[in-house]
Amino acid sequence: MNFEITILGSSSATPIYQRHPSAQVLNIHERFFLVDCGEGTQMQLNRYKIKFARIHHIFISHLHGDHYFGLMGLLSSMHLQGRTDGMHLYCPKALKEIIDIQLRHSDTVLRYELVYHYTDAVSSKIIFEDDDISVETIILNHRIACTGFLFREKPKKRKLIREKLAQYNVPREQYNSIKSGKDFVNDKGIVIPNEQLTGDPKPPCSYAYCSDTMYDERILSIIRGVDLLYHESTFLEEKAERAKETFHTTAKQAGIMARKAEVKRLIIGHFSSRYKDLYPLLEEAKLEFENTTLAIEGDKFVIE
Amino acid sequence: MNFEITILGSSSATPIYQRHPSAQVLNIHERFFLVDCGEGTQMQLNRYKIKFARIHHIFISHLHGDHYFGLMGLLSSMHLQGRTDGMHLYCPKALKEIIDIQLRHSDTVLRYELVYHYTDAVSSKIIFEDDDISVETIILNHRIACTGFLFREKPKKRKLIREKLAQYNVPREQYNSIKSGKDFVNDKGIVIPNEQLTGDPKPPCSYAYCSDTMYDERILSIIRGVDLLYHESTFLEEKAERAKETFHTTAKQAGIMARKAEVKRLIIGHFSSRYKDLYPLLEEAKLEFENTTLAIEGDKFVIE
Repeated sequence: MNFEITILGSSSATPIYQRHPSAQVLNIHERFFLVDCGEGTQMQLNRYKIKFARIHHIFISHLHGDHYFGLMGLLSSMHLQGRTDGMHLYCPKALKEIIDIQLRHSDTVLRYELVYHYTDAVSSKIIFEDDDISVETIILNHRIACTGFLFREKPKKRKLIREKLAQYNVPREQYNSIKSGKDFVNDKGIVIPNEQLTGDPKPPCSYAYCSDTMYDERILSIIRGVDLLYHESTFLEEKAERAKETFHTTAKQAGIMARKAEVKRLIIGHFSSRYKDLYPLLEEAKLEFENTTLAIEGDKFVIE
Repeated sequence: MNFEITILGSSSATPIYQRHPSAQVLNIHERFFLVDCGEGTQMQLNRYKIKFARIHHIFISHLHGDHYFGLMGLLSSMHLQGRTDGMHLYCPKALKEIIDIQLRHSDTVLRYELVYHYTDAVSSKIIFEDDDISVETIILNHRIACTGFLFREKPKKRKLIREKLAQYNVPREQYNSIKSGKDFVNDKGIVIPNEQLTGDPKPPCSYAYCSDTMYDERILSIIRGVDLLYHESTFLEEKAERAKETFHTTAKQAGIMARKAEVKRLIIGHFSSRYKDLYPLLEEAKLEFENTTLAIEGDKFVIE
């Protein structure tokens, strides 16, 4: 069972210095989720040997081009590769119009279905859910409607202690109810408390993706305590005014956010093209929150 | 005075093996023309150190994504770099709709003007002209409306022979008319024929860009004798049926076209992702037309 994030792009709007616009792939228990899809994402997926066919869910935070200009190319390549599996898109409603007009003018009917799940930037909602995982939108504060995404494993079942099950002759058909926390009653009517048969499960993993946004403490409640927070960090604090004007965040502010939200680890990204050297951004964030890392193309972050 | 083509992308629809979708830059007498703009073109321009600000004319052959998915990103980056110079777009009419809808949903008003010059795939037309150069559309035969582009220098003026001008005491203010082919009449009424005062100018350079198209001899008349022909060559001849079905050309057919059009040199490109090794395509074209070269990203072709 893995929970792994691969950075495909760390740049803000203008790609430069071999940095690519925003895109990440999450592998959660071998389900692949693409988060944002800046220009060149399909080339980055090729570079890091992530097969397009494994991706069934794409999340687009907002309709600034550096977060979605790679989508049409990726969807087209999937079509040309003969894909038939449906693709789920979690995105602002207008994206459908943008995709449809381009398919129409290229006279293309995709071989697979696009299933749209619209986000809104008004209230946080669960937009994906299965037995293991849920994805919830995070309402961000940007120049246009923008949502982040909170990926969270569901609470895991308790871990069976095999020797104890053998010792108390627990029949196999009761394992599931015991995993769920039930006590065991044997055929003499004696109750064996669940805590004698099971251990605590691993705590569920969680990842919050927050790009693009100005510093806004209203998101603290939803991201509180996550294992890993990606928070945009377009500017250094010396450009705090510019950050505010453009609805972006400084490295210092991203660090403060991580500290106040008591997250375990912070990744900063969405770097302005004015910074060739990213270490000043890292240093600034670390002064507020030590466990901070730069988003660098190709880097993988594993949540254990 | 230069006439130089730089290949930015040589791939057909699916970018692979470090090959990028279609894009080229022409530098004609220090005017920069971008021809097609596949995904990642802005990154390729950065890689080959071609400044965005130098480009004032972009030609889009047709609305299949591998020929224009990089345009929005490039236009956006130009905007963010503070461009104020207008940009001329030579393209199918529907491209305006595709651009407008994306600008609208990103709430972006470009700092510079987009000046549209619409092509049609019905009849060849001159779509750009100044004192030195003209650009004419080439009607291609593709699944959707598609035009190639013929870049042609205008006939150059005759070359003055400085010693002769001195010998006959030709006043400087007559140089221009003599360059244009006029004879010189001196103050004694004696006519000095132009051919004694001037030499033949260099012949004008020409470049024809033909992508995407099936083999169609109707273009022979317009591309006849050009210095350099770029012709798509998506498949090997063994896939001739597939080429026809998809309105593309084989390497052999591209070679035949070059030979029949009596061009001086052929570049083949728009290679299918099925070919990792491109040399079989080159060999096949060369059997028909020896002076053939592969389009490879970063390669420059100079017309002398």
